[in-house]
Amino acid sequence: MSTHTEAVQKLNALIKGIRIAMLTTQAQDGALHSRPMGTIDAEFDGTLWFFTAWDSTKADELRQHPNVNVAYADPAHQRYVSVVGRAEMVRDDAKARELWNPMLKAWFPEGLEDPELALIRIDVDGAEYWDSPSGTAVVLAGF
Amino acid sequence: MSTHTEAVQKLNALIKGIRIAMLTTQAQDGALHSRPMGTIDAEFDGTLWFFTAWDSTKADELRQHPNVNVAYADPAHQRYVSVVGRAEMVRDDAKARELWNPMLKAWFPEGLEDPELALIRIDVDGAEYWDSPSGTAVVLAGF
Ligand SMILES: Cc1cc2nc3c(=O)[nH]c(=O)nc-3n(C[C@H](O)[C@H](O)[C@H](O)COP(=O)(O)O)c2cc1C
Repeated sequence: MSTHTEAVQKLNALIKGIRIAMLTTQAQDGALHSRPMGTIDAEFDGTLWFFTAWDSTKADELRQHPNVNVAYADPAHQRYVSVVGRAEMVRDDAKARELWNPMLKAWFPEGLEDPELALIRIDVDGAEYWDSPSGTAVVLAGF
Repeated sequence: MSTHTEAVQKLNALIKGIRIAMLTTQAQDGALHSRPMGTIDAEFDGTLWFFTAWDSTKADELRQHPNVNVAYADPAHQRYVSVVGRAEMVRDDAKARELWNPMLKAWFPEGLEDPELALIRIDVDGAEYWDSPSGTAVVLAGF
C-alpha cells in the first residue's frame, strides 16, 4: 500500500464519527476566523467537502485565501486532528446530491433546492493527529 | 456595565471548563496549522494565555504572523467558540508561576524550571460563539 493510501485511510478512520469540525480561514485584514461546520459522513479519499452558502463570509475569505485549516476535536476520546489544505467554492449539483443528507436541513431548509447551497472542496495537503492527553503530534505523511 | 466588560464576562463564561482549545497559526508558506493546547483555568480578562516551548514551531509561526485563532469545541453541550486575537511569545517568570498548574507537567516535565517554558499571550480582538452548531453565530462585540 502506498504511503498516500495509508495516510488517506488513517485520516478517514480518525475523522469518522466526528460530527462538527472547526474551519479556519484568513480574512482580508489577516485575522483568522473559525466556525463550526457539519461534517459529511462519506469515506474520505483525499478531498474534504462541506456544504455552505455561496455568498457567505467564509466563501469570500477562502476565495481570497485558499489556505484553510480544518480542526476536529473529540474530547471524549482525547483525539484531536488538524487538516491543512487548499479550499475552493464549488457548485456541483451531482456532487451535492451525492453528499446530501437530511440532517443538513438545519443549515439549508430548502435542501438541494436552496439557491445558496454550494460546496467547499478542500484538497488536503497534510494532517496531524493527537490520540492521547499528553501525546505528541503524529504527522500523516504522503498526501 | 460597559460593552467591553460584558463581552469579557460572556467569553469567560463560555470557555470556562473547556479543557483543550485548538490554536491556529499561519506558517511561512501561508498554510494554516492547528494544534490542541491545554487551557489555563484562570478568569478571562481580555487576554488569553497558553504555555508552550520558546523554540516551538507555533512560537516561530506566531512571531512571523501574530494573527491567531483559538477555537473551543464542547460537543457534549453543542457549544463552539472562535476567538480572534494577536499573539506574542512572552517570558515572564511571575506570570508563569501565577498560571502554572501541575497538570502541565505532561508537556513540561521540569515544571517552572524548564528552560524552554514560555507563554503565549493573546490579546483578544473579537469572539463569536454558537450554542448549537446550526445556530447563527453570536458576535461578542466590545473587545
Ligand atoms: C490534549 C493536548 C493538550 C496539549 N497542550 C499543550 C500545551 O498546553 N502547550 C503546548 O505547547 N503543547 C500542548 N500540546 C502539544 C501540542 O498540541 C503540539 O503537539 C506541540 O505543542 C507542538 O506544536 P508545534 O509544533 O505547532 O509548536 C497538547 C497536546 C494535546 C494532545
